[in-house]
Amino acid sequence: MDRVLRVDMSALTVREETLPTDLRALGGRGLCDKVLLAELDPLCDPLGPHNELVFATGIFAGLVSVSSSGRISVGTKSPLTGGIKESNGGGTLGHKLGRLGYRMVVVEGQAPTDQHFVLKIDKSGGSLLPATGLWGARCFVSAETLRGEHGPKVSIATIGPAGERGYLLSGIGVTDMEGGPNRYCARGGVGAVMGKRGLKAVVVDDAGGAEPAVADREGFKAAAKRLNQALMAHPITGDTYPRLGTPGLVSFVNQIGAFPTHNFSRGSFEAADEISGEKLYDTIVERGGQGRTTHSCMPGCVIRSSNVFANKLGRAYCSPIEFETLGLCGSNIGLGTLDAVAEVNRWCNDFGVDTIELGATLGVAMDAGIAKFGDLEDVRHLLREMERDTMLGRILGSGTVGAARVLGVSRVPTVLGQAVSAYDPRVVKGNGVTYMTSPQGADHTAGNTIRIKTEHTDPLGKVALSHGAQISAAAIDTVGLCLFAGAPVGANQDLIRDLVATVYGEEVPADYWTCLGTQVLSDEWAFNDRAGVPPIRGRMPELYLKEALPPTGSVFDVPLEEIEEVVRF
Amino acid sequence: MDRVLRVDMSALTVREETLPTDLRALGGRGLCDKVLLAELDPLCDPLGPHNELVFATGIFAGLVSVSSSGRISVGTKSPLTGGIKESNGGGTLGHKLGRLGYRMVVVEGQAPTDQHFVLKIDKSGGSLLPATGLWGARCFVSAETLRGEHGPKVSIATIGPAGERGYLLSGIGVTDMEGGPNRYCARGGVGAVMGKRGLKAVVVDDAGGAEPAVADREGFKAAAKRLNQALMAHPITGDTYPRLGTPGLVSFVNQIGAFPTHNFSRGSFEAADEISGEKLYDTIVERGGQGRTTHSCMPGCVIRSSNVFANKLGRAYCSPIEFETLGLCGSNIGLGTLDAVAEVNRWCNDFGVDTIELGATLGVAMDAGIAKFGDLEDVRHLLREMERDTMLGRILGSGTVGAARVLGVSRVPTVLGQAVSAYDPRVVKGNGVTYMTSPQGADHTAGNTIRIKTEHTDPLGKVALSHGAQISAAAIDTVGLCLFAGAPVGANQDLIRDLVATVYGEEVPADYWTCLGTQVLSDEWAFNDRAGVPPIRGRMPELYLKEALPPTGSVFDVPLEEIEEVVRF
Repeated sequence: MDRVLRVDMSALTVREETLPTDLRALGGRGLCDKVLLAELDPLCDPLGPHNELVFATGIFAGLVSVSSSGRISVGTKSPLTGGIKESNGGGTLGHKLGRLGYRMVVVEGQAPTDQHFVLKIDKSGGSLLPATGLWGARCFVSAETLRGEHGPKVSIATIGPAGERGYLLSGIGVTDMEGGPNRYCARGGVGAVMGKRGLKAVVVDDAGGAEPAVADREGFKAAAKRLNQALMAHPITGDTYPRLGTPGLVSFVNQIGAFPTHNFSRGSFEAADEISGEKLYDTIVERGGQGRTTHSCMPGCVIRSSNVFANKLGRAYCSPIEFETLGLCGSNIGLGTLDAVAEVNRWCNDFGVDTIELGATLGVAMDAGIAKFGDLEDVRHLLREMERDTMLGRILGSGTVGAARVLGVSRVPTVLGQAVSAYDPRVVKGNGVTYMTSPQGADHTAGNTIRIKTEHTDPLGKVALSHGAQISAAAIDTVGLCLFAGAPVGANQDLIRDLVATVYGEEVPADYWTCLGTQVLSDEWAFNDRAGVPPIRGRMPELYLKEALPPTGSVFDVPLEEIEEVVRF
Repeated sequence: MDRVLRVDMSALTVREETLPTDLRALGGRGLCDKVLLAELDPLCDPLGPHNELVFATGIFAGLVSVSSSGRISVGTKSPLTGGIKESNGGGTLGHKLGRLGYRMVVVEGQAPTDQHFVLKIDKSGGSLLPATGLWGARCFVSAETLRGEHGPKVSIATIGPAGERGYLLSGIGVTDMEGGPNRYCARGGVGAVMGKRGLKAVVVDDAGGAEPAVADREGFKAAAKRLNQALMAHPITGDTYPRLGTPGLVSFVNQIGAFPTHNFSRGSFEAADEISGEKLYDTIVERGGQGRTTHSCMPGCVIRSSNVFANKLGRAYCSPIEFETLGLCGSNIGLGTLDAVAEVNRWCNDFGVDTIELGATLGVAMDAGIAKFGDLEDVRHLLREMERDTMLGRILGSGTVGAARVLGVSRVPTVLGQAVSAYDPRVVKGNGVTYMTSPQGADHTAGNTIRIKTEHTDPLGKVALSHGAQISAAAIDTVGLCLFAGAPVGANQDLIRDLVATVYGEEVPADYWTCLGTQVLSDEWAFNDRAGVPPIRGRMPELYLKEALPPTGSVFDVPLEEIEEVVRF
């Protein structure tokens, strides 16, 4: 169906378009990039009226028989990095848009001052409804209210107060299978871009929609089955993820000394065992009730790497708890219990905040002496400051770079304006290269090398590892698969090629995957060049270049010349 | 004598060195650049231990018979721009260092935590003295105390609380002929760099010093006389400056619609007449007492463009009031009386703050609704917040970019992280090119085109104008002359060539001036390239590119391609 919805927030109009033929083969990240490259003044102010916010589905959206294929990409010019940004999340939105035939929603302009809207999308099209009583609401109330108005089955993407206020650490929450806005398009300040447009939420009702047609139905069914079987057979997607989820990484990353602790001043955390994947599993089992050690965030996903963390009463409290959050909102700020991390995590999901950017910001605030590492009461105090939008709250809301600047902290764990994920680049040097060279800034999802068998602290070969991981991530984000499907898909690219061939009814070249990923990165580099994004060489902060990280004593020492030469797409 | 003092704040040692022969012909800005290029890791954190702070005199320092030649340059990597910075001021320090034979003082390292020092320099050399009771003092108390300890004739460069705390809008105050720390090395956050080194002040006692020897004494005397006569004969340096000082520009800049008003939302100010150079002159004359319409900030200056503003009781209150301050701390924040501007100006001199960065920051705060334009009580409140180092005070202290980020303001009057001077680049387009392309960021002193007869709003030819002005400024900052001597010196470069020839006893090539300026800029570009400073294209904020400025309706429209092609040294 290739429907496109174009929303002009300045004129308050919604218009149906058709996806141009030459973009039909793209989805998700690659589709966002093309639109932003074609339509955006790359020099525009990310929070001003000339930026755009693009929601794009993957090419299998609506086809729930393809596991993990319902990701929703949000593309924009990031107020954190100043460059192009794609932030994708799980949940139910992608598949529902797919069932309505929508490939993309482009939001441009800014609503008149003090006017706020909800974009409602259903079979008949899109419409802007006044966000009466909704502006100011946190994400859970926002989602609950919208479900009350539009029916229990709708999917919702909403911002919280953080995004409304233009806090740069804000994300966009997408509802999961149970209707909680827990699946985040988290990074890059995308919540603030949405808030500045006066858009509180997108509501998608797929009633009357249908699975999109594919060119070769039988071939498609067989290919989908092969993918799902491969996912279930692979040790990571078939065992580690469904059992421990991403938190399974805590023990390993802590053991190699790369687990950010006390504002990245150490690489191992004394209480790592208390917030490990194993501990999380045991705790969920022990508490019973509504807790789930394995959980799907979207229909049809066979990996089920998500979880539902229950409180001591067995009531569902936070879903999911991910590795990154355990690092940034756990060890990095000294919180050493799952209940404490879950409390911060839930607050983020509710207030509309990226847990990575928040944890890094709190770490900087603690380094500045505003709060004590490991003190949950102090953390609560800082979160309340944000809730109340006090001056301190606004300092924190501006994210890690802003907080460090104002609070006078030199140890700033960011690259290209965005907080570093929970793999210290001084040890996981492949990820360091990704942070430094990805058009997306410090973002592990742009090229994560942690699961590759390598001596992570050895700088040798890490540029090539990052290079490969970045291409693969760009491809997977573009077809709209979950990154967690990456391992088996990377090992056998025919799994995706076959699916693409049966959907489009066309031959797919053997180098499809690499060409796709390379093309996407190339587009992003082109955008960033035009936007005047700073060159690679100055991006890695002194913290990582000069300060030896205990216990390994490692610094980020991949030679700059090697990085500059090789990683340019 | 070519003495160099090297101060290691980490080891708390002071060491005498001799200026390398190949640097003998350089002074001020060019000398700072060479040292920073040779010694600094360009990727270092500007506020961290690996940055350096260089004080360098001009090549005529100590030779007071050369008018306006006692500027003192401060060089460092700027925490605002992330690039190389040279900020120079008048006052008595340059000539006194010259009389002791010092060409340069290099301050490296950081003092141990909570230890603060004063660098005392006299004939016997330099020594670090504990800044007992001085840390925390404002600049006037600091200077007064140090004069009490070291004698009434010493020259002092001091930071205030702003620099101590690492506020990025901080500068370094240098004492004038009357001993007030009123002559500022203001821009680039140099005060914070000094503060982070644990250095409160530099005290120079030139007792026992002597005028440096020159190669050709008679020739020198004649050349100095020619320069001084040319300065007195030129309409700008012989009439405008001594009569009205830089405030003489207010009427003209306001008339062409380039006078920043209410956070650069307008180019003309309804109360411009109340803060004009003519009004300043009349007020000083009318009030009598200690007020001075003309005033030298350093010995031997025949231009005497400075002034002493007296309060209603005729007591000296603020010296000098400059055009930039009338713009940024006057019209830009809506203050329309000289007394109000003088109050803010005096506070800046006392607290250790750059009036340009402060005024732009307050304008942003007013745009955010934190204070009202034109409300002196509100301004006082904001200054008190900084005094008390509250969260709001720290937000403001972080400068214009930091405040805008935290307070959510999109209209940010900065280029390369530094506040724009009081010539709106949408009208004075030559200065716009300077802001955008100077290695120094938005700084009118890096290439001011305002006095050139041209249609300022016409983009045609402005790249070339800026180019010439930048070369000239770099040369003049390097020989250590005051920029205000620029007009006659630019018109007759022999004035300087003859002086240089007689000082060094060497032939000076005909293209000396252009070669010197070009070489300096080339060094600065090289540093910034290595530091990973963002490319030119993304530097000009949307405010100036997109928002038409009343009353002219002009935007900054010098073609980017032309800028990128031509202005690269």
